[in-house]
Amino acid sequence: MSKITRKKFLKSAGILGTMGLAAASCGNIQESKHKNFQEKPDYEWKMVTTWPPNFPVLGEGCNLLADWIYKMSAGRMKITTFGSGELVPGLECFDAVSMGAVEMGHGAGYYWVGKFAASQFFTTVPFGMNTQEFNAWMYGGNGMKLWREVYEQYNLVPMPAGNTGFQMGGWFNKEINSISDLQGLKMRIPGLGGKVLAKAGGTPVVSAGSEIYTNLERGVIDATEWIGPYHDYLMGFHEIAKYYYTPGWHEPQACLELIINKKKFDALPEDLQEIIETAAARSNIWMVSQFVAKNNEYLQKIKAESSVEFKIYPDEVLAALKGYTAEAIEEIIANDADSKKVYEDQLKFRKGVSQWSQISEKMYFDKLI
Amino acid sequence: MSKITRKKFLKSAGILGTMGLAAASCGNIQESKHKNFQEKPDYEWKMVTTWPPNFPVLGEGCNLLADWIYKMSAGRMKITTFGSGELVPGLECFDAVSMGAVEMGHGAGYYWVGKFAASQFFTTVPFGMNTQEFNAWMYGGNGMKLWREVYEQYNLVPMPAGNTGFQMGGWFNKEINSISDLQGLKMRIPGLGGKVLAKAGGTPVVSAGSEIYTNLERGVIDATEWIGPYHDYLMGFHEIAKYYYTPGWHEPQACLELIINKKKFDALPEDLQEIIETAAARSNIWMVSQFVAKNNEYLQKIKAESSVEFKIYPDEVLAALKGYTAEAIEEIIANDADSKKVYEDQLKFRKGVSQWSQISEKMYFDKLI
Repeated sequence: MSKITRKKFLKSAGILGTMGLAAASCGNIQESKHKNFQEKPDYEWKMVTTWPPNFPVLGEGCNLLADWIYKMSAGRMKITTFGSGELVPGLECFDAVSMGAVEMGHGAGYYWVGKFAASQFFTTVPFGMNTQEFNAWMYGGNGMKLWREVYEQYNLVPMPAGNTGFQMGGWFNKEINSISDLQGLKMRIPGLGGKVLAKAGGTPVVSAGSEIYTNLERGVIDATEWIGPYHDYLMGFHEIAKYYYTPGWHEPQACLELIINKKKFDALPEDLQEIIETAAARSNIWMVSQFVAKNNEYLQKIKAESSVEFKIYPDEVLAALKGYTAEAIEEIIANDADSKKVYEDQLKFRKGVSQWSQISEKMYFDKLI
Repeated sequence: MSKITRKKFLKSAGILGTMGLAAASCGNIQESKHKNFQEKPDYEWKMVTTWPPNFPVLGEGCNLLADWIYKMSAGRMKITTFGSGELVPGLECFDAVSMGAVEMGHGAGYYWVGKFAASQFFTTVPFGMNTQEFNAWMYGGNGMKLWREVYEQYNLVPMPAGNTGFQMGGWFNKEINSISDLQGLKMRIPGLGGKVLAKAGGTPVVSAGSEIYTNLERGVIDATEWIGPYHDYLMGFHEIAKYYYTPGWHEPQACLELIINKKKFDALPEDLQEIIETAAARSNIWMVSQFVAKNNEYLQKIKAESSVEFKIYPDEVLAALKGYTAEAIEEIIANDADSKKVYEDQLKFRKGVSQWSQISEKMYFDKLI
């Protein structure tokens, strides 16, 4: 992709910060085409998000979520979506919804880890479950119950409303052959993954999406992770990095959340509550399906249009990172009762579900392809 | 599980055919608890299903689907669910909905393969995609579009509304060490899997759920497949079979469908159409999550309560079955234009998505667990 195209993507996606124009077109529902819909909604809500406006899959999915709710309620509930920075900065979505300044937010629990440590366990855990297992914990285990308990303390009702699926391990300009190759490495990697990198002697850097390309190009950072082939291609990393590593040990899945101010949610009639719950579940399966389909398509484009080498982290490196992950998690749960409760339940479920996955999904990859 | 418990399950699940009592309690919504709901629904619909009434996960999921629609519509749409045989026999759901005798049905496309061959490609293909890939084809590829096109010829609107996830390969009383061990083997295995077994010299038997246990116990059949640890445990197969094989090469996933009479669907107001589409998507992710969670739990019970040996089909056997599968599919698509169109699109998507799965989900199992 040429830099002009990349810049166009970044601009349209709002990553460059010129979000004013995009805002006006965002979340507007074509009301004229719906017959028999209520003209003036009973509920006009705002959904702030951590994503640039209309961001592929994530922002698009939020717009769709609002659209489904509008249609299902026959125009009684109209939700306007806002990209990060349009109404509040992305990382302030939590406070805005918790305090009731806006009714809804869409993002990921690990963005609020500065508020309370347990939030990250509802998004992803390095070396943790994959998408199918995580959803089984959410809808068929104790996941949803624990999530509601923990977030209730912050006046929030959370629900799964998207997933990135399995992520890639990141872009590098040198090979990672042993754990010592991570020493001194400056890598853009947020969250628990960043803590793990620090334990390995690296320097985790958190930078906004808009800055990563330039920072990597100029050597301000040595490496970066982002999401997967689709979004990484749009960011243009294949133009300036030699190696694309898998697996994304730091995010084997990432559950995205819809958070709703609890007082506002409780005050809704039962039908609208059920409409929101159901739309969120549809968004959950819709987003991951888009990621899988698009990652496939853009993986081919990266291969066709660049000379990027696809690499697998050596087992020795992964084993060391797994050890550091266990240390990092121990430190968190030793100091936080909610984190301990959530993580231990997740771990117990995971230990069991792994055995089932070993004789089912693993067999798919080992034996059927 | 004692035989008494097994019989109780079969009876409550309706497999033994005593379905009268279960019918009365099935699909009844507790209307009294809902405030502000419309007292008399605008739409009172029937959903016939291919599952025994209240059958774990599948029947339960249909009841939930009806309940979500009832709640989201604030009582304007009430759907009563019927188990197989309560209103029409399971395999006649297709005709009943197609002709408009009832408005909705829940089952699996491959049950209608006698009507038109293409239907099976919307359920599962031996050695085909797994759940995540199949959903990506449905929601992010051409799957849904093709499905609607093909089913429109039969006056039906189909949508995914459940998935079994990865299935097990079946129960045997002798080891399968080479493809010749399948010669003369009488196995309960329906659909395309049965055709493949026949090509390997075996005898596929189709028998109702109620008869499998007794047939296997008495040697009327030598082997059977069913679903996975949860349902297989409830059927009691671990009491009478020595070996439990994986992988379920014949069903790496099985997409379950909601079918709606097209005239009835088109006549609905837009909000109710969207409510049904959204409820179906929620059902899709709900069912597979229940299967994964429960299969895990019951896998442990089988291990703890029986001396069943878990076995993996030898690579040589799988390679031969894969070859027979290709032959069987060739025969189908050579004679049916719809099947050819659907299968070739699926195959193209699958070839691409496999490459992404190889560096993502496969890595999860190979490197992160």
